[in-house]
Order: sequence, then structure tokens, then C-alpha cells
Amino acid sequence: MGKVVTTIQRANREVIDGLAAAGVATVHEAQGRIGLLASRLRPIYPGARIAGSAVTISAPPGDNWMIHAAVEQVQEGDILVLAPTSPSEDGYFGDLLATSAQARGCRGLVIDAGVRDVRDLTQMNFPVWSKAVFAQGTIKATLGSVNVPIVCAGAHIDAGDVIVADDDGVCVVKRADAADVLAKARAREANEESKRARLAAGELGLDIYDMRGKLAKLGLTYE
Amino acid sequence: MGKVVTTIQRANREVIDGLAAAGVATVHEAQGRIGLLASRLRPIYPGARIAGSAVTISAPPGDNWMIHAAVEQVQEGDILVLAPTSPSEDGYFGDLLATSAQARGCRGLVIDAGVRDVRDLTQMNFPVWSKAVFAQGTIKATLGSVNVPIVCAGAHIDAGDVIVADDDGVCVVKRADAADVLAKARAREANEESKRARLAAGELGLDIYDMRGKLAKLGLTYE
Amino acid sequence: MGKVVTTIQRANREVIDGLAAAGVATVHEAQGRIGLLASRLRPIYPGARIAGSAVTISAPPGDNWMIHAAVEQVQEGDILVLAPTSPSEDGYFGDLLATSAQARGCRGLVIDAGVRDVRDLTQMNFPVWSKAVFAQGTIKATLGSVNVPIVCAGAHIDAGDVIVADDDGVCVVKRADAADVLAKARAREANEESKRARLAAGELGLDIYDMRGKLAKLGLTYE
Amino acid sequence: MGKVVTTIQRANREVIDGLAAAGVATVHEAQGRIGLLASRLRPIYPGARIAGSAVTISAPPGDNWMIHAAVEQVQEGDILVLAPTSPSEDGYFGDLLATSAQARGCRGLVIDAGVRDVRDLTQMNFPVWSKAVFAQGTIKATLGSVNVPIVCAGAHIDAGDVIVADDDGVCVVKRADAADVLAKARAREANEESKRARLAAGELGLDIYDMRGKLAKLGLTYE
Amino acid sequence: MGKVVTTIQRANREVIDGLAAAGVATVHEAQGRIGLLASRLRPIYPGARIAGSAVTISAPPGDNWMIHAAVEQVQEGDILVLAPTSPSEDGYFGDLLATSAQARGCRGLVIDAGVRDVRDLTQMNFPVWSKAVFAQGTIKATLGSVNVPIVCAGAHIDAGDVIVADDDGVCVVKRADAADVLAKARAREANEESKRARLAAGELGLDIYDMRGKLAKLGLTYE
Amino acid sequence: MGKVVTTIQRANREVIDGLAAAGVATVHEAQGRIGLLASRLRPIYPGARIAGSAVTISAPPGDNWMIHAAVEQVQEGDILVLAPTSPSEDGYFGDLLATSAQARGCRGLVIDAGVRDVRDLTQMNFPVWSKAVFAQGTIKATLGSVNVPIVCAGAHIDAGDVIVADDDGVCVVKRADAADVLAKARAREANEESKRARLAAGELGLDIYDMRGKLAKLGLTYE
Repeated sequence: MGKVVTTIQRANREVIDGLAAAGVATVHEAQGRIGLLASRLRPIYPGARIAGSAVTISAPPGDNWMIHAAVEQVQEGDILVLAPTSPSEDGYFGDLLATSAQARGCRGLVIDAGVRDVRDLTQMNFPVWSKAVFAQGTIKATLGSVNVPIVCAGAHIDAGDVIVADDDGVCVVKRADAADVLAKARAREANEESKRARLAAGELGLDIYDMRGKLAKLGLTYE
Repeated sequence: MGKVVTTIQRANREVIDGLAAAGVATVHEAQGRIGLLASRLRPIYPGARIAGSAVTISAPPGDNWMIHAAVEQVQEGDILVLAPTSPSEDGYFGDLLATSAQARGCRGLVIDAGVRDVRDLTQMNFPVWSKAVFAQGTIKATLGSVNVPIVCAGAHIDAGDVIVADDDGVCVVKRADAADVLAKARAREANEESKRARLAAGELGLDIYDMRGKLAKLGLTYE
Repeated sequence: MGKVVTTIQRANREVIDGLAAAGVATVHEAQGRIGLLASRLRPIYPGARIAGSAVTISAPPGDNWMIHAAVEQVQEGDILVLAPTSPSEDGYFGDLLATSAQARGCRGLVIDAGVRDVRDLTQMNFPVWSKAVFAQGTIKATLGSVNVPIVCAGAHIDAGDVIVADDDGVCVVKRADAADVLAKARAREANEESKRARLAAGELGLDIYDMRGKLAKLGLTYE
Repeated sequence: MGKVVTTIQRANREVIDGLAAAGVATVHEAQGRIGLLASRLRPIYPGARIAGSAVTISAPPGDNWMIHAAVEQVQEGDILVLAPTSPSEDGYFGDLLATSAQARGCRGLVIDAGVRDVRDLTQMNFPVWSKAVFAQGTIKATLGSVNVPIVCAGAHIDAGDVIVADDDGVCVVKRADAADVLAKARAREANEESKRARLAAGELGLDIYDMRGKLAKLGLTYE
Repeated sequence: MGKVVTTIQRANREVIDGLAAAGVATVHEAQGRIGLLASRLRPIYPGARIAGSAVTISAPPGDNWMIHAAVEQVQEGDILVLAPTSPSEDGYFGDLLATSAQARGCRGLVIDAGVRDVRDLTQMNFPVWSKAVFAQGTIKATLGSVNVPIVCAGAHIDAGDVIVADDDGVCVVKRADAADVLAKARAREANEESKRARLAAGELGLDIYDMRGKLAKLGLTYE
Repeated sequence: MGKVVTTIQRANREVIDGLAAAGVATVHEAQGRIGLLASRLRPIYPGARIAGSAVTISAPPGDNWMIHAAVEQVQEGDILVLAPTSPSEDGYFGDLLATSAQARGCRGLVIDAGVRDVRDLTQMNFPVWSKAVFAQGTIKATLGSVNVPIVCAGAHIDAGDVIVADDDGVCVVKRADAADVLAKARAREANEESKRARLAAGELGLDIYDMRGKLAKLGLTYE
């Protein structure tokens, strides 16, 4: 504990922006249904859809000191990702830290703990995915680490991994896989487009996906 | 397991629409305070207010295959209602299935599990009441059943029962009781209207409902 | 049980309104990080920001009778605060009670249980912070008390204490401390204003708060 | 509400006792993996293993009056099963009611709420499966019903259905299916016995169940 | 914050021991169904039944420093009661602190957080009622207070109040009421004794408590 | 997905056994307060205290097929560790699998899901730490992986890491650190031994750890 890693590698910016456009559900599917953070992380307001490189934070319960150290490491387009070292719902982050992070180009925060000043954050258009909204203040007494590997809401995240977040939740893509996952996401979207048109026209998934035979073979009966 | 019931009876369409207009709280009261689904089911966006005939789905955890079979059974004005056979928060339902269901006239989905693509569903005006928003993908490997009796979020539901859902949650009305419940709901609304006016004018419930004597008799004291 | 206290003391109206403007997070900090109610209490719609004197209610589970007794005690600018005597998520409060309370000048409700008719309450602009949205009806069978000390969502509240509630949750300020807390809240806001400007300009909290030396002394290393 | 059904049909006593001996996991499997109550119901002490005919109780939250009415309906070998009409963890049942129920031949209690006096109940050898242990007292103010269909912890139960309960939880068997389920449970046990011996000798499930080919066909690789 | 109150008043030792013998459920009833701590507090082993004077601790999340200050304040027969200032399940207390507390005559710990070394504590016969068992270590960095009023698991507790704890949970009795509550508890026990004998003989509560008329009057029907 | 790694490295057997003797709380402290699994994992019976090399399993929700593949990989002294790919409380593991695992030398199971046949497992002395006890049956339809890195109950685990489990919960020690952590654990125990004796004799932690000055300096006051 007590370490700030200052040089991390990031994925290509265009790849990152492509993943944001694809969204969490598509990216999750495209990479083989891995990388989702737990559903307890919810956005503080609807409609945000971002992706960025993870600046990771491992912080003690109720102690937000390391966020200040992390903000210095933020580059344009990054996302802060905080995991407490034991469960906490304290409000680690509010409008002052958001002002600072946003000034450095930070696109948002993912935190397996609490956040506060959510009205201000909403007005600032600074999105946060959190476990709780809670005004409980935190202290600055104990060291944590920045840009070390963390487990956040059940997902293993390395600094520089790509975080994708929208109304469906949060997903992580390993940095090295980002371009490949984007390609697969786009292929998936293209494929879905034609399906969507047929379904909208009233065709059934049972027919489009040719399921009737398989279901019958497994013993599905109609009464 | 592995059965699709293709002929179900439905309540009268006008009765169903009347129940939608009355709303969950009034309908629940009108039928004697029964039929509510658990409060963990929440709408993915505010403002939707629907009623429809239940097309029920019993599905394995993390397996959404039977939704495709259920969509074929949907008629104009129906609502899909899914109960997993063991607790799950996986995202059984997204924008493609919603496109298909909406094309068949489906008014919405009630699911004691997860949903995804909620931004798309919101834009499509396809309401969902769910236990979670979670992008986790599901598989198509095991049979379930359609239009069999289920227990969803603590309520027993038969296919063809009337589902009422709004910002207060979800309520089920037995098909055979629907017309009677609607009549009682309307009577209740009429009665409430006059009460509302008196309360808005500053009269107290203590006086309107003649409670002071009963409270005093039970021993309520004023200091 | 079974007592209504009819004379309670309230804080100064201008102080109360000042606390509403300061908001929950600032007030909580200003009074030394005490007085927060548990994060399970959430607003039924975003954007409300109120403060008022607490009219407290201790009520049996699933029995809302005492709310009627409490409404009579409401004065312009008060907030109803209900704690059930054992855990409940039943819908104690709906649009009729809100109509009555609003007619008496009540600014909102804080309840460690359920609420219903949330669509109507939203249209009425009557804010509620609750543990659940649940249409489940309640009865009127057993006495409780009004304006007695209660523990609501983990916070001890006396009648006449100042309740502050916004999108961050709910905080209680002891009546006698209200003016002092407001003064501290304003000082805090003034101090934050200059910090916000510097942070927005890209200065780091590490420098503004002079943290680098302390962090180094505790052993923080940079790699 | 407010109904006591006095004549219910019960399954054969020997069948019931056979189901108790088979236990919850085997019975659940034997009847096709249905009928389990939610895992939140836990025994107050380990080691109890019972089965009996359900005497069902639908009771208001925090009101245990109907348990007295239900005890009168208990016959030798029955099990009381209580579902509150809205979520509650109050202590509906303690040593006096257990004394009364045990005197009537009741084998135990299944309750989706709280229980108290658990030390006494343990000493009396009166097993209870409950959602909570909580001393909170209940009242006797409102009617409920006895021997009506209920949903308890997610399972639909009719009076006279067979309840099986042990350290794994609680399962319901429809009365009409009881003999058939017992036969299947015994067949399952016999089949498992030979498997157990082979597994204990070190043979692998991969071989006994002939899984290697299927796994390879699905693409499982060994590195 | 940061205060240790060194002189507190305690209830009479014989009264305290009498309350321990009566147990949580009886004491809770005897004082009018108040004073219970939330059901999430569970004993680390079954069978303990204690009462003692509360030495209260308000501690930051994940910081157990003040327990050391509290142990100095413990007198023979006291019980430590800890409430964190925000939710925590960290392991504040283990075998070393228990050794120290036990050496000072402490009878047990009630904590709305976590505990560890539960095997050792069990062997030492040092009972703990906690929200969680969790080995997570805590720090000693921030002040809290000892023997100040706290809210612990939903109950307001003053230093010197009597804590009663057994397998049913934890209850607090205000110091000034202790003797009176004990008297009522004994009266209740005496009354229950005769009831228990009649119930054990097969008499029904419906008859003993003369409920049949009241139930019929409310409309209970038998079919 | 769909991969079984057949060669994993394990820590030294004596080191592993030493860690078991030290126990979870000491090992967690000795390695710098890292590696704990979430407190929701609880032992199915008290008193077990084991350590072993992790054979990891990533399995779909409600599908236990890969446990069979994992058992083949078990060597004397190993521990099975299962993480579902989405939240599940189904009963993946029962007495037959335990018989098989035990025959191969497996010391126990850690599973972030459910377990069943707990009475049999207790009699077999096969310990399990799980999120739930639930009889719900699972299927064998979809591949997972064995001996790949997993996140189980919030902790990142590689195959061959040392798992330590006792009544306090579960902790993971990276394989490469095991010997070093054991040395530190023993040093810690030795240090604690002398502290324990002094505390048992009535000395205070305030004095033994020389805390009085630090507390006073931070402003702690005695009244």
C-alpha cells in the first residue's frame, strides 16, 4: 500500500470512443460475456454513456485522500475507478473533486462506495456510477494506492483498461483486447440491425433464429 | 417443464384499460389489499402506466430462450411476465426482444430478474418493471414453460390474469374478478374525490373520518 | 405509546431556509459529520431541496393512523418524519394524506418505510424520502405517538429538530444548534468557493491543501 | 380475509414420513426441481428433519392472532406455515404458542417472518424455519385466514400439501403428488447409493456419468 | 467527537442479573415492546444470556482505537456497545481485546459492525452480538467517543443503560426503568407459567384468552 | 471459456499447513490486510480450520458441470474454489460431489453461491464456505473453466494460490508469498502471546501500546 504508479498505458482514443458508442451490453457480449461490474453500481442520472482509460484507486474505508493523488494522474479522457479495501458506502466524492477531475479531462467516476453532491454533479454533467448516494464525509488519514490492480464490484481492473459505462451499468475491457472487442462489437451491431428490422416487421425470433426444431427436439410441447 | 399453452382466456379489453387508468394503489385497495408484487420490482423509467393480460414465462436462471416462445403467444394488449426458477438478476431482455414484443402488440414486461438496453427501451417507450438493470447475457439451452401458473415476486399469477403496473409497482387481478374490481376501483375513486377536496380545503382526516372518539377511547392523550 | 405532544419548539424560519439552501452534504459537514439518516432513504423524484421542523411520528408496522393525528400538529414549514416501531415497507402515505399535509403547509415527508401514489405526489410537488415505493395498504387499528423522540433510519430525532433533505439524502440538525450550524455552513461554502475556482483552473488538491509533504512522510511512493 | 377452513385433506402418513427421511434436496430433485421455498428461511437449530401436512396461515404484518385459530386446526403430524400479507420480521411465534402447537401434535413451523424464544424452542425440540430471529412483539387486532392457499417465501402452498424441512431448507410437495414423489425419491436414493460407492473409491464423475465426450464436443480443452 | 466520560451511573446489580434471567423477549414485552436492537445483530455462538451496564463507544468506520479507551472504563459486569459512525462490517474486535475486556470484568460485546477470532472468543466464553463475522483489520487513526449517547442498530442507548442479550437478540432498558421493568417481567413470567401448563395440557389459546367472541364479531368465518 | 488447465504450481505443503494453523485473521494481518473474501461466505458448520491450494472453477449460473472436471484436477490437500459468472445461490454442490472430492484428497470447498446436503457434509467432515444453503438443483449444459484466474467474493484468485478458511471466513495468499506470509504470521503470533498475557493480567492496551499521549495530542478529553 502507499504507491502511485505514474506511467500507465492507454488504449487508442478512437477505439475507446468506439466502445462508448457501442455501449455496455454490446461490449459485454462482444468480448464473450465477461467484464461486467456488479449491478449494484448505478448511474446518478440517466443518459450518460462514456468510455475511458481506468485510473484505479485502492482506498481505505471512509478515507478519500488517494483521490487527490489520483486526479494528478488523470489525462484527458480517463475515468477514475475506486474500490474501497473493505465495504463502505461513505461519500468519497463530491462537487469539489468533480470540478478538479473535470478540469483535468476526467470523463466520470466508477466507485464501489458512496457519492454526494449528486445535484451539482448532474448539473456539471459529470457522471458517476456508485453503490450508494450518501453524504457521509470521509477523512484523509491513511494511504492507499493509485494505478495498481484492483477488484471493483467483482471485476478485476488494471490501470489503463478501458471502462465503458452507461444506463445498463459498467463493463471493463482489457487494454490489449480493446481494438478486437470494438471490431466484434461493430460486427454484432451490424448483425443486429437486420434482425431488428425483421423483428419490427413481426417476424418471430423462433423463425429468424431457427429455434423451432431444437425446442421440439428437447421436448417442448404446445397445448 | 417444457410446455407452451397456446389458448388462454383474457379479460375484457375495456375493463383492462379501466384498471390501467385506476392505477396500482387503487386497484390493490379495491380488491381487498391483495395481489401486489414485491417492491423490489421497479420501473426502468418513470411515468409508464399500463395494464394487460399476462403471458407468463417460467424460465431457468440465466436462460431467456422461452421468451421467444412467449412472444409468439402475445396478442395485442398483453404483458409478458417472467419468473426465474431460481433467483437471478441476469439481463434476460433487451432491445431486440422488445422490438419483437412491441411488434406483436405487447405493452410491457414484468420480470423478477434483470433487464438491459434500458436506454433503448426508454426511447422505444417499452416499459419494464424489473428487479435489476444488468447487462449480463443469458443463454438458450434449457426449456421452461409459457402460460403456466407462476409465482412472480411473491404473487401467484395465472396466464390471462390482468397485470396493472405504474410508478407504484405491479399488481395482479384475477381474470374472473377484473370487472368487479374495476367497479370497486371506480367507486373508490369517486369517494376519494370528495375527500380530496375537503382535505385540500384544510379539513382534517381526524374530522372527516370521525377518528377523534375512537382514538380517545383507545387511550390517546394530548399533552 | 398513545401520546400526541401539541406544543413543540421550532427553530427560526430564516435559519431553516438557510439550511435548505446549504443542502445536506454541507450541513452534515458543518455540524461535525453527524446527523445523517441511513442511505436507504431516497427521494421519490430528483431535485427537491427542503428544510423544516420535524413533526415526529412513531407508528406500528402497517398502521398509518397516527399520521392523521400528526397532520393536525403541522404548522407552515414543517416536515413529517415517521419511524415504524418495527421494520416495514408498507405504503403508509399517499396522495390524500399529501393533499391534507400540503394544505397545512407541510413541506414533505421523511419515512423509514414505504410510500405510494408517487406519480401524484410528484405532480403535486410534494417530496418524500422513503425506504421503498410500495402500494401495500395500511390499517388504522393501533395507537402510536406524535412529537415524541424517535430513531428514524439510524438517527435520533426530537420534535422540532430541523430536517434537511435533498438529492443526497436526509440530515437532522438539533434545534438548539441550528443557527450555529448555519453560520458554519456558510463559512464552509465561502471557503469552498475559492477552492472551486482554483480547482476548476486546473490546480491540484495535492497543492491547494498542501498534501504532498504529509503523504511523503507517511511513505507514499511514486513509480 | 377472515376465513378458517376446517376440513382439509392430508397425504398418507407413511408417505409423509418417507418424504421426511428422503430430505429436502432429494425430494426437490425427485419432483423435477420445483417447490423450494426461498433460501432466506433458515432453521433455528441444526439437525431437525421433518415432514407434515401444511396448516396454512395468512396473517397481517405484526399480527399473530390467526396462529391461535390455526392451532385449533392442527392434527397430529401437521406443520404450521405462515406467510405475512406484507414483509415483516416481527416475532410472531414463541414458546407459549410452541407449547400449544406441540400439545396438538404439531411437528414444527415454517414462517416467512420472525420467531423468538429460540432457546426455549430448541430445548423443546420444536423446530422452526424462519426469515429472522427477532423478539419484536406482535398484536392481535386484525383478521387473517387459515387453510387458504398462500405464497410463502416464493412457493405456492395449499393447505394439506406436504412440507419437507431440514438443514437444507424447506420444500413443498403437492398433496396429490406425494406418493409419486416418494417413489421417485427412493429410486433416486437407490441410484445414488451405487454412485456414492464408486465415487468414494476414487472413480470420477467424468467417467461414471460419461461426460468426457460431451465436454469435448462442446469444445472443452485441456492445457 | 473525542470525549471519554469517566463517571456513569449504573443500575443495581441484582436488578441487572434479574433482567438477564428474564431474557430479551420477556424484557422487551415487559417494558411495552420498546428497546429492541435490529435483528441483524446475531450472537457468534448459541446459548449466551447476559445483562450488564452499557459502556458505549462511537467509533469511525474501520477504526477501533476507542475500544482501548473504553476498556479502561469497564467495571465488573459491564457490556461494551459499539456503533460505527457510518456503516461498517470490519472486524473491530478480536481475542486480544476480549482478553483485556474479560480481565476487567466485561460480560460481552454488542457491535453494529464486524468481529473476528470468533473461535477463540467462543472458547473464552466471551459472547458477542454483531452484524457480521469478518476478519478485516481496523486502524487506530481517528478519535471517537466513549460513554456518550449512541444509536446502535436502531436503538438509542445512553451509557449506563442496561443491555440484555441472548439468542433472541439484544434489548436496551433505560437505567431509571430497570427495577420497574424487572418487576413487570417477573409478573409476566408468573402469568405465563400458568398459561403454559394449560396450553401443554391441550387447552387452546382461543379459549384461554377468550378470543372466539372477538373473532366472530370481527367477521371470522369457519368453513 | 471452456478450458481446463492441468498443471498448476502449488505452495509447499508445510507452509500451507502452517497457514491453516495461523488462521484467517492472523494471515490477513500478516500479509498487510489484503486477500479477504467477502463476509457473505460463511461456514456450514463451526470449527473447521483448513488451508490448501486453490483449484479454481469459473461456472455459469446454475450449472455445476465444471465441478466434475475440477475434481479430476484435485490433488491431496487442495481446496475447490468456485465463482459463478453471474450471481447465483443455487446448490452447486452436495454429498455426491463431496464424496468424490474427498476421495481425491480435497480439504473443502469455497463457493460464492449455494450448497446443499449440509447435514451429510457435516457428518462427512467436509467443510464448505458458501453464500447460501439452498437445495436448488443445477444443470450440466454449458462449459466453464478450471484453474483459470477468478474473482471470488471480491478477491482475485489464481489457481495454486493458498486458501485459508476458518470460522472467521476465507483469505487468499498468493502462492509466491506463502512462505513469507507464514513467517510474518508466526512473528505476529509470538508478539501477541506476550501481549495476551499482560492484557489477561489486567494491563490496559492504552498503556501496553503507549496510546495515551497520541490520543491526548489528537484532542481526546476525559470528563
